[in-house]
Amino acid sequence: MNSRTITARVVFNRTSSKVGFLTVNTLEPFGRTQIVYKKNEIDNFEEISKLSSGAAVRVTGETVQTPGREQESEIRSQTITIVQDVTINYPLQKKEHSFEFLRENAHLRPRSDYFSKVFLVRSKLKHWISTFFEEENFVFLDSPVITGNDCEGAGESFSVYSETKKNFFNKPNVNLTVSGQLACETFAQTYGKAYTFSPIFRAEISNTVKHAAEFWMLEPEIVNTSLEEICNFTFRFIATMFAKLIKLLPKEVDFFTNKNKVNIKERFESFKKGTIKIIDYKDALKILKENISNAEATSLQFGSDLSSEQEKFLTKYFQNPIFVINYPKNIKSFYMKDNNDGSVQAFDFLVPDIGELAGGSVREDNPETLSQNILEKGISKDNLQWYIDLRNEGYVKSAGFGLGFERMLMYFLGISNIRDVLPFPRAHKMLKF
Amino acid sequence: MNSRTITARVVFNRTSSKVGFLTVNTLEPFGRTQIVYKKNEIDNFEEISKLSSGAAVRVTGETVQTPGREQESEIRSQTITIVQDVTINYPLQKKEHSFEFLRENAHLRPRSDYFSKVFLVRSKLKHWISTFFEEENFVFLDSPVITGNDCEGAGESFSVYSETKKNFFNKPNVNLTVSGQLACETFAQTYGKAYTFSPIFRAEISNTVKHAAEFWMLEPEIVNTSLEEICNFTFRFIATMFAKLIKLLPKEVDFFTNKNKVNIKERFESFKKGTIKIIDYKDALKILKENISNAEATSLQFGSDLSSEQEKFLTKYFQNPIFVINYPKNIKSFYMKDNNDGSVQAFDFLVPDIGELAGGSVREDNPETLSQNILEKGISKDNLQWYIDLRNEGYVKSAGFGLGFERMLMYFLGISNIRDVLPFPRAHKMLKF
Repeated sequence: MNSRTITARVVFNRTSSKVGFLTVNTLEPFGRTQIVYKKNEIDNFEEISKLSSGAAVRVTGETVQTPGREQESEIRSQTITIVQDVTINYPLQKKEHSFEFLRENAHLRPRSDYFSKVFLVRSKLKHWISTFFEEENFVFLDSPVITGNDCEGAGESFSVYSETKKNFFNKPNVNLTVSGQLACETFAQTYGKAYTFSPIFRAEISNTVKHAAEFWMLEPEIVNTSLEEICNFTFRFIATMFAKLIKLLPKEVDFFTNKNKVNIKERFESFKKGTIKIIDYKDALKILKENISNAEATSLQFGSDLSSEQEKFLTKYFQNPIFVINYPKNIKSFYMKDNNDGSVQAFDFLVPDIGELAGGSVREDNPETLSQNILEKGISKDNLQWYIDLRNEGYVKSAGFGLGFERMLMYFLGISNIRDVLPFPRAHKMLKF
Repeated sequence: MNSRTITARVVFNRTSSKVGFLTVNTLEPFGRTQIVYKKNEIDNFEEISKLSSGAAVRVTGETVQTPGREQESEIRSQTITIVQDVTINYPLQKKEHSFEFLRENAHLRPRSDYFSKVFLVRSKLKHWISTFFEEENFVFLDSPVITGNDCEGAGESFSVYSETKKNFFNKPNVNLTVSGQLACETFAQTYGKAYTFSPIFRAEISNTVKHAAEFWMLEPEIVNTSLEEICNFTFRFIATMFAKLIKLLPKEVDFFTNKNKVNIKERFESFKKGTIKIIDYKDALKILKENISNAEATSLQFGSDLSSEQEKFLTKYFQNPIFVINYPKNIKSFYMKDNNDGSVQAFDFLVPDIGELAGGSVREDNPETLSQNILEKGISKDNLQWYIDLRNEGYVKSAGFGLGFERMLMYFLGISNIRDVLPFPRAHKMLKF
């Protein structure tokens, strides 16, 4: 006998007068199976046949292989115990719900077929990232979430305070971090390779599909690395993760290929075969000017930031992800290495549909230039003196990048809204749960 | 020829008129080695012999095995290039510094021998945790950091706001999370086993060696699990991590055994051999009353919280870590399963030196009891209705625990101050960097 007992949640319940079929998601481990129950074999046939989608059951039965069917096996039940049915108010009773509706019910959303797979992939990717960096001899650090810095300038940061313990940290500015990079650089100075992977916060009222107030950013830092080498490393990291997804989660890849109408395998093949394409910002400008005729494009000049549409055009033009490098200094961060021609050793990694997936740079190693940049960007130097000092004390040059974890998930799975890859998304006027 | 080029940071520089020895930490990968340089073999002998501790160098040379010596190999240098020396103000020039001093220089602290090893162990443990839960079929979620809940009651939470975008989230209370458990429970309802591992925040002005304003908490949740089973799982998890440390990082274990005057291997053996000791809170009270004669002990009664000293006494009494279970309801959280005798199905896991290392419970499954608890604890129900609703909608009972990651590190390595296992510690009046 191949009898076992499982806990499961009902997805569909189809029944006739003598036999019923429960399509369920099992817990421990998570998976899909079908349970067959017969009037003449179980005591509570009537009760079970009334069970709703969402109900929890405990089933003892025999597993039977059913090759070629949607489920590879089914369970012929001996007993079915109702753990708990759902109420008439259960929000997920219908087979398909809009993503908007499911976001409003984020506490139940992982139970839906689509989101159970999204969050499963998210969990696997997280582990693969840990494994990748461990195998590459990186040292991980938990960069702090509460910080005295405001690296992106005023207004983009959330502030932190204690209602009852005024001036808890004895600092004028207490913010939620916008990047773990500066902390990570201190570790790279010891270990050569370090990385952080931390929640990141932006108080932006941009209700776009790509922005959230809280998201997760992966930030590796490597000493003795040129701009080209850090581009190559970025590409190799993303390609390795993408390859793992294709290889280890083929069913989920097929599922999202169908649901999201994006051929994920094709996207991967195209990504992989594309020799790493690196183009200079100036050449990107030239291509845009030659190929786009609208007013925006004609006003483009060195120093202009690229719009999302222009970024998308470039990925279409090259039919592949591209690295754009040597951006104008005026539109980039204070810590990027000056090329002394108005540009800095920075890159943006642009992919189709998403736009910027990662951005990185060689770090400015000259403490005077760094001080000057901080001054020019209007950032307070008080909290950054230690960062400048690093450049005076046995400094080894380094480079690194920041990659939006959610954007990578969106790119891999063909998901268009960042709120649909975050377990409990936070955004402007969005803080339920 | 076994010649190679490395980047390294000088730890010591000893020199005579004809030969010098640089003890260095290599970067990529991190490790200790010794570099021999001779006046008649390198061009810049004078310059190198003046290099300070902390300087960065690039060395090309031949690796020679030196079995039995402190370093397993040394490098006979052909060329040494100075990447950058340190200034006369470099804070870490002395061989040994106080931990207080090093905390004030957290940006350089990983370069010190002691802390380079602390953060290496922290990084390894983080990866082992990811591997453990992956192998046990858990699904990971990033529980949100910004929350509308204040589960611990007023005053313990930090508040969040945007200076420029008033009422960003359109909520009266916006806080930094004190636990990812509630979010994690929603995932356990789908996957059976889920876990979160997130930064956690407490606005406590307790300047003890065990408290920080920002720390990391591991919170697994498992369905169909009794109080005894969740105790066993907690023990098995910690024992597995401890065994990995002993097996995979023997040099670091020896180092901290010497430095911290705690026999780590003995601690592990004692931990491992101790059959899992579970005692009832009532029995713990009895033992305390019988064995402690001070005023505190005599006033102990059912409903009293145990002090750190009393917890330590219990671990000494049993000469081992212990689980204390069935705590009085009045001193525990609203979500713990009621035993209907004034106690709840909760445990604290107490270990020598540290006290509480983990705490867990079976979760209250009755929505009415849960509502009543929330009311009695004076917590606003508005943001917890979804959590109560979970109990009405195909709810599968679950249990879980929360483990302070820093406390586990402190226990494993014999470190007494939580600020010495956090890369950039945040505490009352402590927010440098």
